[in-house]
Amino acid sequence: MGAKYTKRSEDYSKWYNELIERADLAEHSDVRGCMVIKPYGYAIWERMKEVLDQKFKATGHDNAYFPLFIPKSYLSKEAEHVEGFAKECAVVTHYRLKNNEEGEVVVDPEAKLEEELIVRPTSETIIWKSFKNWIQSYRDLPLKINQWANVVRWEMRTRLFLRTAEFLWQEGHTAHTTKEEAVEASEEMLAIYADFAENYMSMPVVKGIKTASERFAGAEETYCIEALMQDGKALQAGTSHFLGQNFAKAFDVKFADQNGDRSYVWASSWGVSTRLVGGLIMTHSDDQGLVLPPRLAPIQVAIVPIYKNEEQREAIAKKVEVLSKVLRNKGISVKFDDDDNKRPGWKFAEYEAKGVPVRVAIGPRDLENNNAEVARRDTREKDIVSWDGLELYIENLLTEIQENLLSRAHKFREENTTSVDTFDEFKQVIAGKGGFVSAHWDGTEATEQKIKEETKATIRCIPKDIKGESGTCVYSGEASAGRVLFAKAY
Amino acid sequence: MGAKYTKRSEDYSKWYNELIERADLAEHSDVRGCMVIKPYGYAIWERMKEVLDQKFKATGHDNAYFPLFIPKSYLSKEAEHVEGFAKECAVVTHYRLKNNEEGEVVVDPEAKLEEELIVRPTSETIIWKSFKNWIQSYRDLPLKINQWANVVRWEMRTRLFLRTAEFLWQEGHTAHTTKEEAVEASEEMLAIYADFAENYMSMPVVKGIKTASERFAGAEETYCIEALMQDGKALQAGTSHFLGQNFAKAFDVKFADQNGDRSYVWASSWGVSTRLVGGLIMTHSDDQGLVLPPRLAPIQVAIVPIYKNEEQREAIAKKVEVLSKVLRNKGISVKFDDDDNKRPGWKFAEYEAKGVPVRVAIGPRDLENNNAEVARRDTREKDIVSWDGLELYIENLLTEIQENLLSRAHKFREENTTSVDTFDEFKQVIAGKGGFVSAHWDGTEATEQKIKEETKATIRCIPKDIKGESGTCVYSGEASAGRVLFAKAY
Repeated sequence: MGAKYTKRSEDYSKWYNELIERADLAEHSDVRGCMVIKPYGYAIWERMKEVLDQKFKATGHDNAYFPLFIPKSYLSKEAEHVEGFAKECAVVTHYRLKNNEEGEVVVDPEAKLEEELIVRPTSETIIWKSFKNWIQSYRDLPLKINQWANVVRWEMRTRLFLRTAEFLWQEGHTAHTTKEEAVEASEEMLAIYADFAENYMSMPVVKGIKTASERFAGAEETYCIEALMQDGKALQAGTSHFLGQNFAKAFDVKFADQNGDRSYVWASSWGVSTRLVGGLIMTHSDDQGLVLPPRLAPIQVAIVPIYKNEEQREAIAKKVEVLSKVLRNKGISVKFDDDDNKRPGWKFAEYEAKGVPVRVAIGPRDLENNNAEVARRDTREKDIVSWDGLELYIENLLTEIQENLLSRAHKFREENTTSVDTFDEFKQVIAGKGGFVSAHWDGTEATEQKIKEETKATIRCIPKDIKGESGTCVYSGEASAGRVLFAKAY
Repeated sequence: MGAKYTKRSEDYSKWYNELIERADLAEHSDVRGCMVIKPYGYAIWERMKEVLDQKFKATGHDNAYFPLFIPKSYLSKEAEHVEGFAKECAVVTHYRLKNNEEGEVVVDPEAKLEEELIVRPTSETIIWKSFKNWIQSYRDLPLKINQWANVVRWEMRTRLFLRTAEFLWQEGHTAHTTKEEAVEASEEMLAIYADFAENYMSMPVVKGIKTASERFAGAEETYCIEALMQDGKALQAGTSHFLGQNFAKAFDVKFADQNGDRSYVWASSWGVSTRLVGGLIMTHSDDQGLVLPPRLAPIQVAIVPIYKNEEQREAIAKKVEVLSKVLRNKGISVKFDDDDNKRPGWKFAEYEAKGVPVRVAIGPRDLENNNAEVARRDTREKDIVSWDGLELYIENLLTEIQENLLSRAHKFREENTTSVDTFDEFKQVIAGKGGFVSAHWDGTEATEQKIKEETKATIRCIPKDIKGESGTCVYSGEASAGRVLFAKAY
C-alpha cells in the first residue's frame, strides 16, 4: 500500500478511477466500453440487488426473464423509442463463424440473419410483445413484472460503473387498467428508489420530473431521483416512466373490462443499474479510499489481531470467536483477518481502502485490559472500548455510521444547492463551485437548450416538492411557474 | 381447465410442451430459439440459484461479472475451444442503426466493428484474459470465481428449458497451483451438483466421466451428472471440467511459487443452467401437471377455503391466518387463495398443474369438526387431519414428499437400467424400453461412433463408482476394462 494516490481535491476523475482499482471493485476489459466487475464490487451490487428485490416483491412484483435479442423491426414499432435507442446498439447479423482457406476464423457469410437482432438496450418492445399474449381482460391486470438483466448501449465515452456499454440493471414493466393506476405505479417505484438511495446508500436524492427533452424515449412522463456527487456534478440515479398507452398501442395490447369493452392498457417502466455503485462511491469516499454505508457493506466489521507469539494469537482468536458469533447472530457480517503474511498496518490500510465501516484491532495490551480498539471508517475516529458490551457498541456504531453518512451527504447537498435569480449568478455558480442551481425557467426547450450550450448545465429535474413560486426565467426573462434544478451531470 | 391435455404415455414430447404452458412456466419468443421465462418458471429457477449460490459461497467461491461480448480473436486462442464453439454463435458486426432514405431503420454500414464480437457461448476465454491480470504469485491462488449469466449458442433444434439459443446459467472458473488441486476442485463441484440434484431436485444422478468425444472443448477431463427422464432418455444435468493448463497456456497465465519459479496455473470450470428446470419437470411430473419437490417449490402449501357465506369465510380466514403464520415462521411458503372469482375445483386443478406439494382445503364441515383436508401432490392422496397439530403434520409431509420423490425416481432409474452383454440385446433395449444400458466398450472412439450411428445411443458417462470388471466390448468383441452407461439423450 506504499503507492501514492491522487487526492480527491486534486483530480476528482483520476481519484475515482484509482479508487476503483485500489478497492478492487472493477476493471476495464479489452472489449470497448465493457467492464469486469470484480468480486468485491460485485458483492456490493449483490447487496443492492437483494434489498431492491425484496422491495419489489413486497409490492407485488414478480421476476421473469425475456430474451437478450430484439428483432430490429420491434424497435421501430414505437416511433420515439426507436429514435432514442436505435443509434447506440449492438447489432447481431450472423450466427456462425468458420475457418477460411488460411485457417483463420471468420464470419460465415452463408450464416447471415434474415432480420438483424439488436442486443437489448432496454426491453419495452420485447416485453410488450409478450404482454400482448398475457393480457386479455381486467382480470389479468395489474401485471407487475421485473427482470434482472444485462443491457447494452453503445456509449462512446465510458466510465467504470457510471457509463458502460454493457451494464447490469433491473427493469420493471407494469400494465394497468387506468391511467391513474399506471401513474401511481411509476410514483410508487420512485418512492422505493428514493427510500433505497437514502436509507441504504445514505445518498440523499431529489425526486422530480424530467423535462420533455430529457424524457425516456416513448414515455409520457419520466420521474427521476437525482443525487449530487462530491465534485458538484449531479447523477441521475434512477428513473421511473409513465408510458401512457404508447407501447400498448404499438403492440396492440387491449384488455376487456367488466362489460367486455376493450381498451388499450396503461403502462409504467422503471430501472436502476450498476451505475448506483458509481454513485455510492462518489457520495462518500475520501482520500483513504472507499467509504461504505453499513447496510450495503459486504464486510461490516473487520477484526485484526496483533500478536507476538502463538499464545497471544490463540487467546485473541478465542475471544474473537465468541464476539463474531454474537455479531453474526445479529446479522452483522464479520471478517476475522488472521492472515500471517500481512502486517496489521497493511490490513488497516486495506480495510480503509475497501470502505469497511468498522475495524476492530486487538493486541496483547487489549487482552490484558479486556479492551479493543474500534475505528470507524466514516470519521476515522478511534476509541478504546471494553470487551464487555462490545457487540452492542458495534451494533450501535453501525447504525450511527449509516445515519452520519446520510446527514453528512445531506449537509453537503444543502451547501451546494444555490438559488440564483440572474443568469450571471447562474454562470458564476456553475463555472465555480458547481452543485445544484435552483433557478426559474420559462418552460421552453429553446431556453433549456441555450443554457446547456452556454454553461453545460442541464435541467436535472422539476422537483416534486417545489413551492408554487412564480418568477421570471433567468435566461429569457419570460414568466416562470417555479424553480427547477440545474447542474452539470454525469 | 376444461381443456384436454395429451397424456404422458401418449406423446411424451407433446405432454412436456403442454405441461410448460399449463403450469405457466415459459413460452417461445419470436426470436428464434429464445424463450421467455414466465414468473412461475422463473421462481423455480430463483430457488435453484439461491440454493446453489449458497453452496458455492460456502465452499469459498466469489461471484463476479465478465463482459457479454468476446472479441473473435479470443475464441481462437485455445485450439479445441474454437472448434467446439465457433460454429454456433451470435456475431455482433455493427454498433449502430440509422434511418435510410425511405425512413426505414437499417444497419448503418459506417458503424462496422473492426473486430467482430461474439456473444459469449461460455466465458473461459474472456475470464482467462482477466485471470492473466489477477494472478501473479501463489498468494493469488486458488482463485475461485463464479458468475451468473446469460449465454448464447445458436442451436438449430430448440426446446423450452432443455435446449435454447439463449439460456441462463452459472459458470465457475477456478485457478490453482497444482494439478491435484484443480482436479479436486472439479470433483468437489461435481459432488455439489449431485447433492443438489438428489437432495433438492429429488433427481437421482449418475456421477461419471465423459469420453473424449463428449468432452468440453478445451478440457482434459469432463465430469458430469447424468439423470434419467421418464421417457427413458438421459439428460446431462451438469458438467465440471478439469482444464489442465490449456487456458493458462492460451492466455499465458503463470504464477510464481515460494521460490519465485514461474509455472502455468491449473484450472477447472463448471456449470449448470436453466436446463435443470427441464430435468425437474421430466423427472416427476404426471398427467395432472407439474410435480415439484418441496425444497424447490415457490409455493409449498396452497390453502383453499370453501364457504357458502361471509360468516364461514371469516371463520376460515381467521383459522388460516394463525396456521399460515406458524408455517411461515418455520420457513414454509404458504398461499391462501381466497379469490372469489374462481371455484374451489378450479383452484384444485390449478395447484395440481403447478405442482404445489401440499394442498389444504377447509370447508364448513371441517370448521365444525376442527379438521382440514390435506392432499399431497406426489401421490394425490388425501387425508382428513385434525387442525390441532396440523402444522407439524404439514411439515412432516413436506419432508416425506421430498424423500418419496427421490426414492420413486431412484426406483424408476433402477428399473430402467439394463445390463447387456450382446449387441442384439443392446439394440433391443435401446429401441424398446430405453433407459440406461450398462455395457462393455472397447474404449475406442470408432466403436462409440458406430454404436451411435446404429442405435442413436451415446455413452453418457463412464460411471465413477464402477466396479473394475473386465469383459468384452458388446460391439467389437475387443477387451474392455469396465462397463459404461449408454442411452439416447436430450
